[in-house]
Amino acid sequence: MIAVGGILILAACASAPTPRGTADLATVIARATGQVAILDTSAKQFIGIIDGLGDLSHASIVYSRDGRFAFVFGRDGGLTKVDILGHKIVKRTLQAGNSIGGAISQDGKLVAVANYEPGGVRVFNSDTLEMVADIPALVGDGPDRSKVIGLVDAPDNRFVFSLWDSGEIWVADFSTGNTPVITRYKDVGIQPYDALITSNGRYYIAGLFGEDGMALLDLWHPENGVKRILDHYGKGQERLPVYKMPHLEGWAIAGKRAFVPAVGHHEVLVIDTETWQQIGAIPVHGQPVFVMAHPDNRHVWVNFSVPDYDTVQIIDTESLAIVGELKPGKGVLHMEFSSRGDQIWLSVRDDNKVIGYNPYTFEPIAELPLPSPSGIFMSSRAGKIGL
Amino acid sequence: MIAVGGILILAACASAPTPRGTADLATVIARATGQVAILDTSAKQFIGIIDGLGDLSHASIVYSRDGRFAFVFGRDGGLTKVDILGHKIVKRTLQAGNSIGGAISQDGKLVAVANYEPGGVRVFNSDTLEMVADIPALVGDGPDRSKVIGLVDAPDNRFVFSLWDSGEIWVADFSTGNTPVITRYKDVGIQPYDALITSNGRYYIAGLFGEDGMALLDLWHPENGVKRILDHYGKGQERLPVYKMPHLEGWAIAGKRAFVPAVGHHEVLVIDTETWQQIGAIPVHGQPVFVMAHPDNRHVWVNFSVPDYDTVQIIDTESLAIVGELKPGKGVLHMEFSSRGDQIWLSVRDDNKVIGYNPYTFEPIAELPLPSPSGIFMSSRAGKIGL
Repeated sequence: MIAVGGILILAACASAPTPRGTADLATVIARATGQVAILDTSAKQFIGIIDGLGDLSHASIVYSRDGRFAFVFGRDGGLTKVDILGHKIVKRTLQAGNSIGGAISQDGKLVAVANYEPGGVRVFNSDTLEMVADIPALVGDGPDRSKVIGLVDAPDNRFVFSLWDSGEIWVADFSTGNTPVITRYKDVGIQPYDALITSNGRYYIAGLFGEDGMALLDLWHPENGVKRILDHYGKGQERLPVYKMPHLEGWAIAGKRAFVPAVGHHEVLVIDTETWQQIGAIPVHGQPVFVMAHPDNRHVWVNFSVPDYDTVQIIDTESLAIVGELKPGKGVLHMEFSSRGDQIWLSVRDDNKVIGYNPYTFEPIAELPLPSPSGIFMSSRAGKIGL
Repeated sequence: MIAVGGILILAACASAPTPRGTADLATVIARATGQVAILDTSAKQFIGIIDGLGDLSHASIVYSRDGRFAFVFGRDGGLTKVDILGHKIVKRTLQAGNSIGGAISQDGKLVAVANYEPGGVRVFNSDTLEMVADIPALVGDGPDRSKVIGLVDAPDNRFVFSLWDSGEIWVADFSTGNTPVITRYKDVGIQPYDALITSNGRYYIAGLFGEDGMALLDLWHPENGVKRILDHYGKGQERLPVYKMPHLEGWAIAGKRAFVPAVGHHEVLVIDTETWQQIGAIPVHGQPVFVMAHPDNRHVWVNFSVPDYDTVQIIDTESLAIVGELKPGKGVLHMEFSSRGDQIWLSVRDDNKVIGYNPYTFEPIAELPLPSPSGIFMSSRAGKIGL
C-alpha cells in the first residue's frame, strides 16, 4: 500500500501544541528552502513545516533529551532550536560565520557546534542557547585557528572533534562543569575531514583528506594516544575522480564487521572492528556515500554519488551478496531507519520527495512531496550516544 | 547533589495533558499497591501515578511506537493501556486468568501476552485492545495446553515464545497480516522457564528449569533448528539452594561478551557470543539476579537475591574487576539505565524508594519515595527490538 500525501500544516498547533508522544517523529531538512519538515512515521505523513532556518546545505540535527526539541546546525553558523510538537522556532542564534555540524552532551544540557569561521567549538546551554564555553581551535599556541570537523558527543559529557588545519584530535571533558578539560592529540594525520564515534562511544575515528589511512582514538585507553588504522583507506595510488567524499557517519557496524564506503571506488569495504583490518570488498553500483545498517544488522543499505545517485543497493551482512536494488528517483541523498527497523526513509532531492520503504519487502509504504530534501533525523537519536 | 522529592500528582493533567516530549519518561511498577508511577528522568521527579492496575507481582511493560502509551502486563491476566502523558488508564482488559509478560510487534500495531491460564498467547490491536489472534499452546495435538513463557518480539513482526509443559519454542509470524504463520520447534529441553532475544533480534535463548543448558534459536537460520548451548548452565551437580532463578532479560551483552547471572552460585559468567561457550566466571557478592550493561558497554551492574539484596556491584567489562559496590537499601529488585547512559535508576522495594545514580561517579542523583517499587521501564524501549 502506498500512502501518497502532501504537507499538512496544522497552524492551530503552533500556539497550542496537541499532546502526543514524540518517539515516532522525525525531521527532514528541505535544504533549498531553508525549512525543516516534521514527519510522523506512524501516520506516514508530514505534520508540519518550519521556515526561516537559513542556509541548510550540509545541515544536521540532534535532539533534546526529552525528544521534543530539534537543534538544527546550519552551514551559515545558525543554531536553531525547533519545537517539533509546537512546529515553531523557539530560539535561534547566528553563533559563527560558517559551521559544520554539532552534538548534544550525554546529559542533554549542552549543545556544541563545530565552526570553520572562527575556527573552534562553541558550547551552549540547551535550554536557553546561551553560550557557556568557547573553545578556540588554536593552531599550536595561536593566534591562527583551525577549522573544526567531526564533532561528536562521547560518554560522561565529553565532546570529541578534529582540527582540519593542524591535524589534531581534541577531547573536551565537561563532566565536572561548564569549564572543559581539554586534551589535545597532535600529528594524527593530514587534514582530517570527517569523523565518527562507534555506537557505544568507545572508538573515535577520523578520515584523512590529505593522505591515506584513518586516525583512531580509543576513549577507553586515551593513554595510548591516536593510532593509524586502515593504511590504504583513501584515494590511494590509483586515483579516480572522487565525486563526493563519503560520509563517515554512514559507517555501518553490524556485529563485529564495519561496512565502509570506499573513496572513489565502486566498493563497500568490510572491516573487522577488533583488529581494524580490511577483510573484504564488495563491488557495488557506484561510488558509495552512505552505508547504513538496519537495526537488526541483517542488511546494509548503500546510496551513491553522481552519476549513480538514483540507485540504492542492499547488501546481506552475512553472505555479502547484494540482495536488493531500488531506483527511488534522482538524487538519493540520505537514508534513515526507524529505531526498531520497521521502516526506512529516503530523501530524493532532485525529485522533491521523501520515500518510505518496508525494509523487509523492499516495497514503498509512502511517497511524500518536499522541496529538495536532504538529511532525515529520527527523534530516537535523542537516546543514542554519538547521534 | 541529591534531589529528594515526593510524588507530585498533577491532577489537572488527567483531563488535558500538558504537551511535552516523551523520550525522557519512564514508568515504575509499585507492586504492592497495583500502581504505576511516571518518572521524569530530566526533572528527577515522579510526575504522576496511576491506580487500579490489579496484581502487579512480576509485572512488565512495553511501549507504543510513539512512546505515549505503556502496556502493563499484570500477573492476573490484566492487560492495561496507560497514557503516560494523560496519567490515566485508556483501556483495560482481563484477557486471561494468569499471565506472565508480553511484547509489542516491530510495527507497533500488535500487543501479545503470554498466558499460563489458559495456556497460550493472545494478540491484541494496540489501539483498541481488541483481540486479533488467539494462539492456544497445544501440547502435541491437544487438548491440553502448556503455560507460555519467554515471549519476545522479533524483527519483521514476529513473536517468539516457549512452552513450559511441552518443551517447545514457537515462532508466530505476523508479517503478512493478523493470521500468524506458526513454526514449532520441539524437544528444545525440559521446562523452559524464561528467555531473551539479543538486541539485534537474531538469537532467541531459553533457560531450562528441568535440566542444565540452554536452548538457542538463530532466527537468521531457522532451518538449523534449536541447538543446545552452555551445557553446564543451570543448577548443576553441586546443587545450592536457589533463592531466585535469575532473569534472563538481565543478560548483558557488551561487545562480543555476554555477562550472565549464574544459577545459585555467587558468580557472573562470561560467555563468548560467537561460540556461545563460557570463557570466564567472576566471583560476586551473592546470587546474581539481573546483570545490566551500561549503554557504553564499559560496566555491568549486578544485583542479588536474598539475603544479599541490599547490594549492587559494578564490573568492568574489560578487566573483569569489580570497580564499585553500593548499598542502596533493602530489596534492590531492578535497575534500568537511561538510553544514552547518563543515569541509572534502581528500585529498592523494602525501603519503599527509587534511587537514581550517576553511573560514572556512582553518586546518587535522586531518591524518590514509592511503595514497593519493582520494574523500571524507560520509554526509550519503544525504539528497541525485543524490549
